[in-house]
Amino acid sequence: MTIARAYAAFNPKDPLRPHTVERRDPGPSDVEIDILFCGICHSDVHQVRDEWGGSMYPMVPGHEIVGRVTRVGASVTRLKAGDLAGVGCMVDSCRTCESCARDLEQFCQKGAAYTYNGTEMDRKTPTHGGYSTAVVVDEAFVLGVPESLDPAGAAPLLCAGITTYSPLRQWNCSKGDRVGVVGLGGLGHMAVKLAASMGAEVTMLSTSRAKEADAKRLGASGFALTSEDATFTKLAGHFDLIVNTISAPHDYNRYLGLLRPQGTMVLVGAPPQPIPVSAFSLIFGNKRLAGSLIGGIAETQEMLDYCGAHGIVSDVEIIPADKVNEAYERMLKGDVRYRFVIDIASLKGA
Amino acid sequence: MTIARAYAAFNPKDPLRPHTVERRDPGPSDVEIDILFCGICHSDVHQVRDEWGGSMYPMVPGHEIVGRVTRVGASVTRLKAGDLAGVGCMVDSCRTCESCARDLEQFCQKGAAYTYNGTEMDRKTPTHGGYSTAVVVDEAFVLGVPESLDPAGAAPLLCAGITTYSPLRQWNCSKGDRVGVVGLGGLGHMAVKLAASMGAEVTMLSTSRAKEADAKRLGASGFALTSEDATFTKLAGHFDLIVNTISAPHDYNRYLGLLRPQGTMVLVGAPPQPIPVSAFSLIFGNKRLAGSLIGGIAETQEMLDYCGAHGIVSDVEIIPADKVNEAYERMLKGDVRYRFVIDIASLKGA
Repeated sequence: MTIARAYAAFNPKDPLRPHTVERRDPGPSDVEIDILFCGICHSDVHQVRDEWGGSMYPMVPGHEIVGRVTRVGASVTRLKAGDLAGVGCMVDSCRTCESCARDLEQFCQKGAAYTYNGTEMDRKTPTHGGYSTAVVVDEAFVLGVPESLDPAGAAPLLCAGITTYSPLRQWNCSKGDRVGVVGLGGLGHMAVKLAASMGAEVTMLSTSRAKEADAKRLGASGFALTSEDATFTKLAGHFDLIVNTISAPHDYNRYLGLLRPQGTMVLVGAPPQPIPVSAFSLIFGNKRLAGSLIGGIAETQEMLDYCGAHGIVSDVEIIPADKVNEAYERMLKGDVRYRFVIDIASLKGA
Repeated sequence: MTIARAYAAFNPKDPLRPHTVERRDPGPSDVEIDILFCGICHSDVHQVRDEWGGSMYPMVPGHEIVGRVTRVGASVTRLKAGDLAGVGCMVDSCRTCESCARDLEQFCQKGAAYTYNGTEMDRKTPTHGGYSTAVVVDEAFVLGVPESLDPAGAAPLLCAGITTYSPLRQWNCSKGDRVGVVGLGGLGHMAVKLAASMGAEVTMLSTSRAKEADAKRLGASGFALTSEDATFTKLAGHFDLIVNTISAPHDYNRYLGLLRPQGTMVLVGAPPQPIPVSAFSLIFGNKRLAGSLIGGIAETQEMLDYCGAHGIVSDVEIIPADKVNEAYERMLKGDVRYRFVIDIASLKGA
């Protein structure tokens, strides 16, 4: 057992502060990782503040983890000491249920072991995330990160990357497809980069004209203001696929009107309240409203390999751990382009 | 030009009564059909009573038409006099737009020419439907009906059949798939027959225990009462596909809970008011809520050929034309198993 330095929340109200967590010695199938960078996800704030209920404290958040392998167990074959590795939202699952058998560990019927604010599959041992200097995870849930990628920029791929890559693949995003991305934040900026890399003609749909230049730099060829009614007539029937990252209340029916026949809007952001959907919005045009949650382990590895091949990382602002509370406040105001990443070296000093 | 006897609505309030309509002499690409049977669809009532607005009178309803070809134009190749033929919801479209090019004439960007209560593509000549002794339609919108099928039972395939066949195909209904059908009416009974014929394990989801025996006779292997809360726990995560035929208000989220990960609920019934949908219902499980409207001409022919090969027709109650007003009342009470079909011979007497 080793002691890792960490940053933790102790209750829903107070700022996060330094802490330590115990990490087990690697078992036969385990991989020990020296964490280099950990991204900050909106869900970190929700869980730290107990906005989804059931939060467990002390909580060491962080599920966008990139680091170097330091030790591996005897049966580990895919990774070795020195490899660049990643850990995302899950550290284990039952591995036998129907969902796990279909490479959808995020929907494990016994409930996956989430990387933090959860337990291992023994349902007793608490899990702690990547706002820490080291983590030990079973090989089956450790991803290989291409050496060609900047490790800080790669960290958010483990959540924001797979969350947007998976729906693009599920809905077969292809060369020439017209893809709309609603909202330019942590998820939206990855959706633009990934869809553009797949050859899609990407349009950013945003409430803020200030986002236009950035959207185009990231790969969008079009931009439209969702605050203007004209957008919804001009682009009616335009898109094959819309990736909707917005978690504020908005009218889905208007966006469904932007789809071509057989087009799909995928939700990766979840407004807190149900939103009225007219059956007519779906029936006229054989349209689809879908949801998508992160991705399975195999697809996450596929995404990382894809990003390696295409040189895709997240746009990040690197901060030391002691700026995490400030980063939460700025993130909630949308004041980050586009993901905060903690430099874990800041936790390792004397 | 010939005169066809017909049954027509003259305003939204009064009963339908005898009428006549002019049918053009067949042009080079036209097919003239002596109508044998015409099914009665719920949408006939909505349009007769102007419940969707914009109804045009006198109106001869009917878009589930089966008859014998009597004459064809010089350039017609697919059909000849004596053939059993069908006409569904459309009699023409622009044939050049993106939707038409994709065999989705029902979403023609110029607006398809609907079989009745509409106009030909000249946007002047009114169209009149199958509550009549004859119809003349361009070959491109006339379907071949397999001779092996009972013509009365085949008539509802032109709307109820394609409306349920298309979503089963769109969502790749396959052997062993678990398919739920919500509501056992004109659409629901076709969905059960078709899904069962494709090898799916079909469960009828109904508010009425009285429907169980019939559902099983039609091909369902399971039955569950949607009026019982226990159904929604017992069958949680069970279905690959749900075909939802209900047009009364109901909670989509409960039904989305019955889907497996990556499962789809397709709406073919449209409740009048929007229904609140929780993004969480879709995101947890990568689920899909979709709509589907009839089907294109090529798919309608595919469906008829499929039904011919599998001996599938609608369960019908055959009535003379002068019982149509009574049939409307009974249909609105759900008192028909499962489709009224007008025997057009009743219009042809002296």
